[in-house]
Amino acid sequence: MTAEAVLLAPPVEGDITEDKLLDGRVRLLQPAQGYRAAIDPVLLAAATPADGGDRVLDLGCGAGAATFCLAARLPGVRIAGLEVQPAAADLARRNADLNGVAARVRITLGDAAQAPGHLPPGSDPDLLAGRFDHVMTNPPFYPGGRHTRSPRAGKAVSHGEGTADLATWIAAAARLLAPRGTLTMIHRADRVDDILARLAGRFGAVVLYPLWPRAGAEARRVIIRARLGARTPARLLPGLVLHGEGGGYTPAADAVLRGGGPLDF
Amino acid sequence: MTAEAVLLAPPVEGDITEDKLLDGRVRLLQPAQGYRAAIDPVLLAAATPADGGDRVLDLGCGAGAATFCLAARLPGVRIAGLEVQPAAADLARRNADLNGVAARVRITLGDAAQAPGHLPPGSDPDLLAGRFDHVMTNPPFYPGGRHTRSPRAGKAVSHGEGTADLATWIAAAARLLAPRGTLTMIHRADRVDDILARLAGRFGAVVLYPLWPRAGAEARRVIIRARLGARTPARLLPGLVLHGEGGGYTPAADAVLRGGGPLDF
Repeated sequence: MTAEAVLLAPPVEGDITEDKLLDGRVRLLQPAQGYRAAIDPVLLAAATPADGGDRVLDLGCGAGAATFCLAARLPGVRIAGLEVQPAAADLARRNADLNGVAARVRITLGDAAQAPGHLPPGSDPDLLAGRFDHVMTNPPFYPGGRHTRSPRAGKAVSHGEGTADLATWIAAAARLLAPRGTLTMIHRADRVDDILARLAGRFGAVVLYPLWPRAGAEARRVIIRARLGARTPARLLPGLVLHGEGGGYTPAADAVLRGGGPLDF
Repeated sequence: MTAEAVLLAPPVEGDITEDKLLDGRVRLLQPAQGYRAAIDPVLLAAATPADGGDRVLDLGCGAGAATFCLAARLPGVRIAGLEVQPAAADLARRNADLNGVAARVRITLGDAAQAPGHLPPGSDPDLLAGRFDHVMTNPPFYPGGRHTRSPRAGKAVSHGEGTADLATWIAAAARLLAPRGTLTMIHRADRVDDILARLAGRFGAVVLYPLWPRAGAEARRVIIRARLGARTPARLLPGLVLHGEGGGYTPAADAVLRGGGPLDF
């Protein structure tokens, strides 16, 4: 965890913590229980290849961890967050104010599976137009295994799994991207087969960027980038080793997680 | 190259060399021009998880580099080689004699796309039955890029490419494997997306084992293992670094390429 929770009593349902990401450059209100941002959304934002005045969609943004990390790194980008859970979308809006970026971060309450066709008429115009330069997404999954189910409703939705979910997510990204737009996803490494199978045909220029817990250890997470409509061959990159021998972050990981730098690949 | 060619004059079409693999434990007659075994088939054989009296198919065996490396490592296995090019199949048969393993290596001249249905009646009974414990394959591909074409006919066939080829290859493996049998393939890392898309639905328990030319360098080759009919999640392993800083093989690569050990994953 890079987040430092500020909570003095044991958490109860409905409690909110204020956490810090990127060594304090991002403040994040999030539920004390259920899905909580760890390093995945920070790495996702670092890997999203936006620049200049690009329009970026954070698909399934939750409370906005990836959104606000990206906003902190790239002052020129406009970011739309789409989130289906009202409580999380509300937190994301509060977080936009808290981080002083409400002018260029717009949160929409809505279902990725129905975007952009069935969003309310007053929604973010970029979302309604469905022409983002980049989509970044940390889709719902169970961290503990395919058959683990969380007893908590919020966590169960945030960490929902299944091939159908992945297919829905990737199809939504394809609908919402401009031609040649990029999709960047962080997911469990053990879903890499499903993800590549779902990208096939619509996305190309696939890049696999493994995240190794330690040097020589099996990857637990992978970042996958792809370009809509491209036919360029895939790449399998050496990726990032997260922890050194002492257990702390490697300098390369620290430069991203605390330093706020990009994952430049 | 681990192969040490014995050829005293410049090669002409039709010339044959006798090369050595696994530090001389395998002798390999192969054409002096066109497709020639380098380290790919050696690594493929090392990664094939056979043991005991398993029946293994080398799909598109060429002159048999992977076949004879596997036979050298595992004295109990029976190996069938299927090869569509008559000259290569003939060399593979001569190599079986040369390596003293003709009793347990059987080479069949035939087309993977038509196996096992349209093989001649006298073919290897294991091939006709289509019930191998393991298939290993180093399918045809162009080493230099998707749009490179070799001027030499033999090389062009051995290194043919295209998604259709991959689909044919994987479908043939599925037909020829016993239930729960394993497929082990070595291929260009930039085809990983197509390969995983083609495995989806029929194969599971996918394991990606990248081969890194040097530490920190993008993978050029990847070994992919999968199990027919499995639904187990995928794995993304740290793989093998081939060359050290001085340019020679790393100790881990040397233990396989010269030592003849397995790639144990």
